[in-house]
Amino acid sequence: MKYPKSVDQLISAFRQLPGVGAKTAERFSLHIVNHFEKEAMDQFKDAIDAIQTTIFHCPICGNITDINPCLICQDTKRDQHMIMVVEEAKDLMAVESSQTYHGLYHVLGGVLSPADGVGPEQLTIKSLLERLKSETIKEVILATNLNAKGEMTAAYLLTLLQGTDLTISRIAHGLPAGGHLEFADDLTLSKALEGRTKLTKS
Amino acid sequence: MKYPKSVDQLISAFRQLPGVGAKTAERFSLHIVNHFEKEAMDQFKDAIDAIQTTIFHCPICGNITDINPCLICQDTKRDQHMIMVVEEAKDLMAVESSQTYHGLYHVLGGVLSPADGVGPEQLTIKSLLERLKSETIKEVILATNLNAKGEMTAAYLLTLLQGTDLTISRIAHGLPAGGHLEFADDLTLSKALEGRTKLTKS
Repeated sequence: MKYPKSVDQLISAFRQLPGVGAKTAERFSLHIVNHFEKEAMDQFKDAIDAIQTTIFHCPICGNITDINPCLICQDTKRDQHMIMVVEEAKDLMAVESSQTYHGLYHVLGGVLSPADGVGPEQLTIKSLLERLKSETIKEVILATNLNAKGEMTAAYLLTLLQGTDLTISRIAHGLPAGGHLEFADDLTLSKALEGRTKLTKS
Repeated sequence: MKYPKSVDQLISAFRQLPGVGAKTAERFSLHIVNHFEKEAMDQFKDAIDAIQTTIFHCPICGNITDINPCLICQDTKRDQHMIMVVEEAKDLMAVESSQTYHGLYHVLGGVLSPADGVGPEQLTIKSLLERLKSETIKEVILATNLNAKGEMTAAYLLTLLQGTDLTISRIAHGLPAGGHLEFADDLTLSKALEGRTKLTKS
């Protein structure tokens, strides 16, 4: 006994999503079969359809967009002197929703990961270097994540950019708001110590 | 700054799935945007399309199917004297994949849940009673889950069916294989004691 073909097909489609195993894919698919109205199913299909036809990567910053250039690159009110380099579009969104940064972005489209066949050519590093030549950038903030690949990617970009007139900075890592020292992992703790700020002059 | 409309639409479609919050829906959607080839997106759309056009509930047992009656109801080699009553199609699939049961099924399509507006009319209870009248059933195995709603639904079905010639049974609950007594929850433990089998005559 197996599920009908279309249900099996949807289960295997869901399994391609990150962190979705056989049981979860089955639950999602049966939920759609049993509980979704026609409108909700149409919404799924139409959204994927629209993504296929309208979404592309901004040729300037690499962000996902349906207009060219993207809204951020179009926005002349933003600080045109800073570029924050992030891994993925969702990182850009996270920074944007914090409303703490008003400069430009550059979305790498991933991190260096030689084992997965991701080298500098697979990321938008070439277009970043082009931007830095032609635009009025003064500072590049490396905001890749604090893990082996993110650190390696930041280090690689640093070697490419040092020697230029640009200020290169790395976003600060340390204990998060509400974080407890006793639960902090070793890497966070070492970064928190490394980046400590002096409160008194010595 | 927001995602393009189509991406937002896909995020909100994913949020309708059980256990999928804002962050997960965003991760799923961006994974599709960034990493899915045309074929994988088509698979998603086509599967939902096929579900809309070909899937229905078997008018006999309530299982999801694309043929009428479903494969199980069609299969004359199955034991036609037993019906196992389950909540959802996925429960039927779980029992089938264990290959421990060869009778018929009846899929309720949920459990009684007055607070959510689910009464007997929202489940396939009427068609179950019809089947029990007209078919050659001798035993009904109540296999709803071991939780408040599953137990209530089983109790409700028992009141409907007792007084008939049918044997009504409840699937056994107790400690699972590989389960440790020390980690068992109270309900499982109480069911395990209640359902204990005698090893010596007394």
